[in-house]
Amino acid sequence: MTPEELASLLTKVKSSDCSIEDAVQQLANQHAETITDACIDHQRLQRTGIPEVIYGASKTAEQIILIAKTMLRQKGPVLATRVSSAKAAVVLEALPELEYRPDCQVISGSPLALSPEKYRGKTLIVSAGTSDIPVAEEARLTLKTLGHPVEKLYDVGVAGLHRLLQHRNRLLEASTIIVVAGMEGALPSVIAGLITSPVIAVPTSIGYGASFGGIAALLGMLNSCAPGVAVVNIDNGFGAACMAEAINRL
Amino acid sequence: MTPEELASLLTKVKSSDCSIEDAVQQLANQHAETITDACIDHQRLQRTGIPEVIYGASKTAEQIILIAKTMLRQKGPVLATRVSSAKAAVVLEALPELEYRPDCQVISGSPLALSPEKYRGKTLIVSAGTSDIPVAEEARLTLKTLGHPVEKLYDVGVAGLHRLLQHRNRLLEASTIIVVAGMEGALPSVIAGLITSPVIAVPTSIGYGASFGGIAALLGMLNSCAPGVAVVNIDNGFGAACMAEAINRL
Amino acid sequence: MTPEELASLLTKVKSSDCSIEDAVQQLANQHAETITDACIDHQRLQRTGIPEVIYGASKTAEQIILIAKTMLRQKGPVLATRVSSAKAAVVLEALPELEYRPDCQVISGSPLALSPEKYRGKTLIVSAGTSDIPVAEEARLTLKTLGHPVEKLYDVGVAGLHRLLQHRNRLLEASTIIVVAGMEGALPSVIAGLITSPVIAVPTSIGYGASFGGIAALLGMLNSCAPGVAVVNIDNGFGAACMAEAINRL
Amino acid sequence: MTPEELASLLTKVKSSDCSIEDAVQQLANQHAETITDACIDHQRLQRTGIPEVIYGASKTAEQIILIAKTMLRQKGPVLATRVSSAKAAVVLEALPELEYRPDCQVISGSPLALSPEKYRGKTLIVSAGTSDIPVAEEARLTLKTLGHPVEKLYDVGVAGLHRLLQHRNRLLEASTIIVVAGMEGALPSVIAGLITSPVIAVPTSIGYGASFGGIAALLGMLNSCAPGVAVVNIDNGFGAACMAEAINRL
Amino acid sequence: MTPEELASLLTKVKSSDCSIEDAVQQLANQHAETITDACIDHQRLQRTGIPEVIYGASKTAEQIILIAKTMLRQKGPVLATRVSSAKAAVVLEALPELEYRPDCQVISGSPLALSPEKYRGKTLIVSAGTSDIPVAEEARLTLKTLGHPVEKLYDVGVAGLHRLLQHRNRLLEASTIIVVAGMEGALPSVIAGLITSPVIAVPTSIGYGASFGGIAALLGMLNSCAPGVAVVNIDNGFGAACMAEAINRL
Amino acid sequence: MTPEELASLLTKVKSSDCSIEDAVQQLANQHAETITDACIDHQRLQRTGIPEVIYGASKTAEQIILIAKTMLRQKGPVLATRVSSAKAAVVLEALPELEYRPDCQVISGSPLALSPEKYRGKTLIVSAGTSDIPVAEEARLTLKTLGHPVEKLYDVGVAGLHRLLQHRNRLLEASTIIVVAGMEGALPSVIAGLITSPVIAVPTSIGYGASFGGIAALLGMLNSCAPGVAVVNIDNGFGAACMAEAINRL
Amino acid sequence: MTPEELASLLTKVKSSDCSIEDAVQQLANQHAETITDACIDHQRLQRTGIPEVIYGASKTAEQIILIAKTMLRQKGPVLATRVSSAKAAVVLEALPELEYRPDCQVISGSPLALSPEKYRGKTLIVSAGTSDIPVAEEARLTLKTLGHPVEKLYDVGVAGLHRLLQHRNRLLEASTIIVVAGMEGALPSVIAGLITSPVIAVPTSIGYGASFGGIAALLGMLNSCAPGVAVVNIDNGFGAACMAEAINRL
Amino acid sequence: MTPEELASLLTKVKSSDCSIEDAVQQLANQHAETITDACIDHQRLQRTGIPEVIYGASKTAEQIILIAKTMLRQKGPVLATRVSSAKAAVVLEALPELEYRPDCQVISGSPLALSPEKYRGKTLIVSAGTSDIPVAEEARLTLKTLGHPVEKLYDVGVAGLHRLLQHRNRLLEASTIIVVAGMEGALPSVIAGLITSPVIAVPTSIGYGASFGGIAALLGMLNSCAPGVAVVNIDNGFGAACMAEAINRL
Repeated sequence: MTPEELASLLTKVKSSDCSIEDAVQQLANQHAETITDACIDHQRLQRTGIPEVIYGASKTAEQIILIAKTMLRQKGPVLATRVSSAKAAVVLEALPELEYRPDCQVISGSPLALSPEKYRGKTLIVSAGTSDIPVAEEARLTLKTLGHPVEKLYDVGVAGLHRLLQHRNRLLEASTIIVVAGMEGALPSVIAGLITSPVIAVPTSIGYGASFGGIAALLGMLNSCAPGVAVVNIDNGFGAACMAEAINRL
Repeated sequence: MTPEELASLLTKVKSSDCSIEDAVQQLANQHAETITDACIDHQRLQRTGIPEVIYGASKTAEQIILIAKTMLRQKGPVLATRVSSAKAAVVLEALPELEYRPDCQVISGSPLALSPEKYRGKTLIVSAGTSDIPVAEEARLTLKTLGHPVEKLYDVGVAGLHRLLQHRNRLLEASTIIVVAGMEGALPSVIAGLITSPVIAVPTSIGYGASFGGIAALLGMLNSCAPGVAVVNIDNGFGAACMAEAINRL
Repeated sequence: MTPEELASLLTKVKSSDCSIEDAVQQLANQHAETITDACIDHQRLQRTGIPEVIYGASKTAEQIILIAKTMLRQKGPVLATRVSSAKAAVVLEALPELEYRPDCQVISGSPLALSPEKYRGKTLIVSAGTSDIPVAEEARLTLKTLGHPVEKLYDVGVAGLHRLLQHRNRLLEASTIIVVAGMEGALPSVIAGLITSPVIAVPTSIGYGASFGGIAALLGMLNSCAPGVAVVNIDNGFGAACMAEAINRL
Repeated sequence: MTPEELASLLTKVKSSDCSIEDAVQQLANQHAETITDACIDHQRLQRTGIPEVIYGASKTAEQIILIAKTMLRQKGPVLATRVSSAKAAVVLEALPELEYRPDCQVISGSPLALSPEKYRGKTLIVSAGTSDIPVAEEARLTLKTLGHPVEKLYDVGVAGLHRLLQHRNRLLEASTIIVVAGMEGALPSVIAGLITSPVIAVPTSIGYGASFGGIAALLGMLNSCAPGVAVVNIDNGFGAACMAEAINRL
Repeated sequence: MTPEELASLLTKVKSSDCSIEDAVQQLANQHAETITDACIDHQRLQRTGIPEVIYGASKTAEQIILIAKTMLRQKGPVLATRVSSAKAAVVLEALPELEYRPDCQVISGSPLALSPEKYRGKTLIVSAGTSDIPVAEEARLTLKTLGHPVEKLYDVGVAGLHRLLQHRNRLLEASTIIVVAGMEGALPSVIAGLITSPVIAVPTSIGYGASFGGIAALLGMLNSCAPGVAVVNIDNGFGAACMAEAINRL
Repeated sequence: MTPEELASLLTKVKSSDCSIEDAVQQLANQHAETITDACIDHQRLQRTGIPEVIYGASKTAEQIILIAKTMLRQKGPVLATRVSSAKAAVVLEALPELEYRPDCQVISGSPLALSPEKYRGKTLIVSAGTSDIPVAEEARLTLKTLGHPVEKLYDVGVAGLHRLLQHRNRLLEASTIIVVAGMEGALPSVIAGLITSPVIAVPTSIGYGASFGGIAALLGMLNSCAPGVAVVNIDNGFGAACMAEAINRL
Repeated sequence: MTPEELASLLTKVKSSDCSIEDAVQQLANQHAETITDACIDHQRLQRTGIPEVIYGASKTAEQIILIAKTMLRQKGPVLATRVSSAKAAVVLEALPELEYRPDCQVISGSPLALSPEKYRGKTLIVSAGTSDIPVAEEARLTLKTLGHPVEKLYDVGVAGLHRLLQHRNRLLEASTIIVVAGMEGALPSVIAGLITSPVIAVPTSIGYGASFGGIAALLGMLNSCAPGVAVVNIDNGFGAACMAEAINRL
Repeated sequence: MTPEELASLLTKVKSSDCSIEDAVQQLANQHAETITDACIDHQRLQRTGIPEVIYGASKTAEQIILIAKTMLRQKGPVLATRVSSAKAAVVLEALPELEYRPDCQVISGSPLALSPEKYRGKTLIVSAGTSDIPVAEEARLTLKTLGHPVEKLYDVGVAGLHRLLQHRNRLLEASTIIVVAGMEGALPSVIAGLITSPVIAVPTSIGYGASFGGIAALLGMLNSCAPGVAVVNIDNGFGAACMAEAINRL
């Protein structure tokens, strides 16, 4: 309940347009309403910022269709991550206006218009190897769906440093850099040592043996000797994109 | 070698003021010089951005004094983290203009002037418990030394939610929030669900038994169900401050 | 051997209706019989309290049918957890009076009548996300089969706190709360900070990457900063229900 | 703000005893006040239930003294866990009315009167070995300070089963049992198989080698094959006592 | 080269039936021969003790057939562990005289005759739950194939202690006991506390969540508080049987 | 209650020397008495087999003295493991007839006479390195105190195989071998490949870095590719000795 | 830009054949060119040393075909590791001149000629068991494709030491030894104790239970008590071969 | 027994200067002698290659003195690693000709003369940070003591890449490179991508929090995406030096 609404209610009480009992009732509920308001505010912010996103791994195709339909009705962007090909086929049959990227298992649709004016720069997504690209693309699709300017620079891992150094200008131009790497996860440290923008490091589960499904890369990134690096969960391209969006939003 | 220097050299070659051999020599060394330049550029950026910081845990008091003296000569801020009380006593005897905070084991001195104009907002540092304050203070002192606007909100953990909710406005006003928490590390998720600014989560080693020196908090933060959260190493208040500085720097 | 049976035997010995040799023999076996009695007592308690439950993961459909038949003959409730769809199809063909819930992989049948008079209140089952519902339902079905009053409150995770706070009354009314959460597992701490009833925390294996199949949630719950929380195994909805039943049984 | 207070305010508004501006001001603050109320309610509940407890491991003696004094002024019980002997000496010099138990590192004082009428039974604390007694005593002292009826049964580990079986009656009489065990942590399963009351299992860090500071016991307890067992953190006697208190409180 | 063979060779040298050069040659090779002999001796010992056993998990059906044929030709027993049903079908088609037990994935054939005279007693195999039976049966089949006297006692886990105590005599009669248990792995401690014979503990991978594929049971057994317990690898029924055979062999 | 005692009681009942009420009372208590008997029997077996052993790590010097005095009164052997030098000094001042070995932190005294006739052979204790000797000596002292024949063979690790092979005869003569090794823990596999007697493997915490306090050696031993190996806890020389004693006892 | 090219450019500047502006432009780009040169040098070295290798696990058949075609056009050797049978079938249909080894999942083709003159000796590949052979073969095929002399010695694990000792000469002749072992991973220590050449240890994921997918073997090898051993990732036969190639290359 | 000795013995047999019984005896012992010979050969190789090294962590000062005296008598080099300052003081008092380096805890003395002719090049030791220098120095002192040519390049970690790239020539000149790094352990990958010589990676325990005592660096190095890298144990500078010595020895 806004101050204006409060004043209006109290005016009605004073003028007896509202009984004291009714006012007590309304005000007693105010706590819940305040929370509900916050909720609605929050959702509104989300609609203009980060929309509700469907975590597809543990939902049925039917559940995904239901949520996506609501989102489409609200003219909002649709984003569903970790959707298997089988589920995606069912979803797209019901909602053919959506798109599915099998490599990064993302369903998207009805994206927000590209809005450079809403952000203080662009995000550059860097991947160490070609195997890390699906996670990088999950991040890129998320940012694109949100209307956030985004570029990519893939396959520039530390074992061939010249590949990275050739693109130093692109690194310097980005306002935020998402670095996606598996195996030893060393790329974020190297990049953070070359620039002053914040680096969001995404470990991937690429590797075998002692990579332990991404633990090696995760630990490497958490122990980065370069300042200005923070880390998200293994394979969490979506989370890195949300962090980048939050950093750049004006 | 700047373009101007290059042009000057070439002009000398043309006018025979410099022999071709000498010019070849100088230009052949240019790669190293470029790198050295980058190095100097980098250091200059660092001086205006993040200064060289002394990781005190594995240095002797003598080494710390030597580096700190150089920094003081360059009129730069001095920051040394993880300095034991014993080492600090030796350092401060030699350099009485420095200060030591025993709770967070930081030596600092010659801070940059507070520079709100260099940043797009202030950073709020939130701690879950009183035991997490030393790590939170490492972050706060780092930002203060860099001249970055910073506020604090301590002891508002999730087991008493009302303490946090009372300060929702302060959460909404910050452009970046550093959340420091041990034990189950749940606070970053709760805060990220209330705001739209980026959250930098710092797990602490506070706890016992199955907290495993901060692993429980670290895993909790990496698995945050709220978007807009990224994580730094356990007890790494300094790293969180660097990330915040990089995010907010204009 | 009850005191009455003992007295009866001794009377027979005294009256020579039972030879001393026979009595020695019977009494020498008494230890085993005592144990057997304890066993029968125990089973009787179980029949009125927690019935024998079939752990279906490592049994064949035939073994499940055999045990379920015995239970049905004894008019007891039937509960089989972690039964795959394929096994369940075989079981239900043989015992069509049973029911199968594929989402939580539980076969149940012949439930005890709802018995609020046997319990000092009702258990509320709270889930953090929709993905945690199968484990929550395993707990709810177990309690329902035992005749224990149970309610549910799903999808109220910490990233959208208002969803939870709207239902504070329901939290306060429950005599025991089972909180089911994956990812960072923060919900039990938040709830335990709001109420005075005991909280049974169930970590789920929902998540990916550094959730490590539920370890992150498990550690988060074990390190809860709120008093009045105890934890069961990952995905162990059944165990949480048994604990709740034991707590509330009059 | 209670409904009565709200009605009173509104009546004043209606009668112009309070200006609309003032009322708006007061009601706009209502959210915070509501929260503060909840806070105060919560604290009141705590005062009658579980009091504020001082986690001494990461506080200075001075901080402990300060908090303890406040508690004593409020006539509440004082309980500080994990206080080293050195700190305790300082605390007790300042507050000689407190007591210190060096074996379980607990400072306590001003306990609540024993109140069997507030609880539906007594808690029995069982320890597997003599080495587990300090953790068991942390639990017992906590309950005693809260006025909760409590008994103990120590050194009845599974390697000498007869020691336990001799005391079956005491196990059956308790309304809640806290079982404290290190090494393989098997005792809770054995006890839960003998009784129907809830068992709170406390793993201890007693052991060496592959006990890994209590992980072996913790895992053993989480995987208990007996229903009706829930687990708290390693060495967390205090947490087990809080859970028992919550279970038994009428 | 046996002493007799050596003497024979030397006699030939003395009698000039063998030239010194030839003898040097033969004796120079003796090291290899000795080793080869040891190898043959070793194999002979194995033939009368533990035969070559085929670890089927990483061999093709063809490889298993080849080795089994050699063993059958040598009239030795055949034992192949961890053979999948698919592989076993191929093997048994080629060698119909062999048998396959799908529950414990063992192929066996041509067993040694039961030889109580070769052993100082019988081995009792105890399983905690019905789910542990396949591992127990791998142990039992191994001992049976070796001709070692063996008995079984299944489904006597610690959650229903009376089941075990009823069979105390059988425990006391065995000269070695193999105890197979998953989940918390507490049974070996309980049994070792009742008897004086050596206990070989076999953790199984039965369980879920924090059982971590048998780690919980393994740690529980390694930390047994009862003396006279030693442990083999998770699910290693075969290894436990070999240890029992070695212990009991006269 | 023995059969004789039972018959005696029944005779008294028959002859009315004992009232039925008294007999009921006595027999009703029989369960506890049986257990107590078992306890006493068990202790008697222990006295002739494995005596009560004092785990000194978590006992005070006073507690150790108290228990040791009782043992000495009963003419039994005294064995206390993991006793620090400081505690041992206090104990030996009170009980000068005991001995302390600071290298393996064992107090012993009043050993049983060497009794080869009670065992079917001798135990050989092998250590891989000189650093493993303290654990090996804990095992040797335990066996010596029990009167079990024992020999030693130290510093014959796998990196210098010839040292081990020179002593093959000694390996073949032992009826049980305890192999103590840290670092990679490979020695038990090599020895078990040379002999047919059972091998008890004891991992030690010797090593650094990725030895993880003995985990590397423990895992190596659990994964031994040689049959006839079982493992005890890290540094558990005492446990290995108990297992050897149980194996060899006639 | 080589010194000659530099001199040529400068000569043109002097002779005004190149304007100063153009020269500045070219020299300003020199850094990138230098890097590009290094890149080309590097690739040339690779072409004569270790060629680009295709990590097949995370590439599609189409991607593998594309890269392999480029390699074949450049007359270079083709090596693709971790290619599933299904992918390999597609690749070989398109490029029938390649070969596929299903046991070690390697596609190879167009190998370099065997070049003993380029190396200071041959590499011997030793495997502990037959199950380790696929990883050993990945190493052998890699070396063979590179033209490096290589021999093999398989199935000589530590449980039957004589098998290894018979081949001591072959061990002594090799200039580098790759030792491939799973389970306890003890073979590298034993071999390194017999020779003076460097040993590259490759842990394999062969095993079950506490082998934890190769961790036991990895830790065993890292903790080797023999000097002259270094380790590569679990199952990384390719990496071991590259290390051997680098060691032996003249 | 050499062929000559064998021939001599046989000649004596033929001439009856040695009875057949005596010859059988001598030859039956030959196996052990052969092994002993190998031992002596091995030691001779060691004397010219890697000398016996004293692992000081688990030896007393007296033991170190004893072994060092033997080594000095044999004119061999003395090297003792992981010797604490306290122990070193005792050792150097007894053997003042030795030296102690407190930073890397190494005692050395009587080094072999620098022998470039024995090696095919020099080893370069690179450290990432100044904190890694003690481990790097352990490696350097080991090589120096062995007479192996060695250079150093310290503090060139990946966060400031230009520092490393300036020294590319030095990297290219070395025949083997030992790279010592803690934290994320990324330096070996970067270096191995720049050169063709073998890289021996040494993780250090430098770091805090999620570095887990060097595990992060160890995993990073094992997962290196660059070929030609092998890894030794955490902080094992000595082991890396031995590997380098074995690689370079002619």
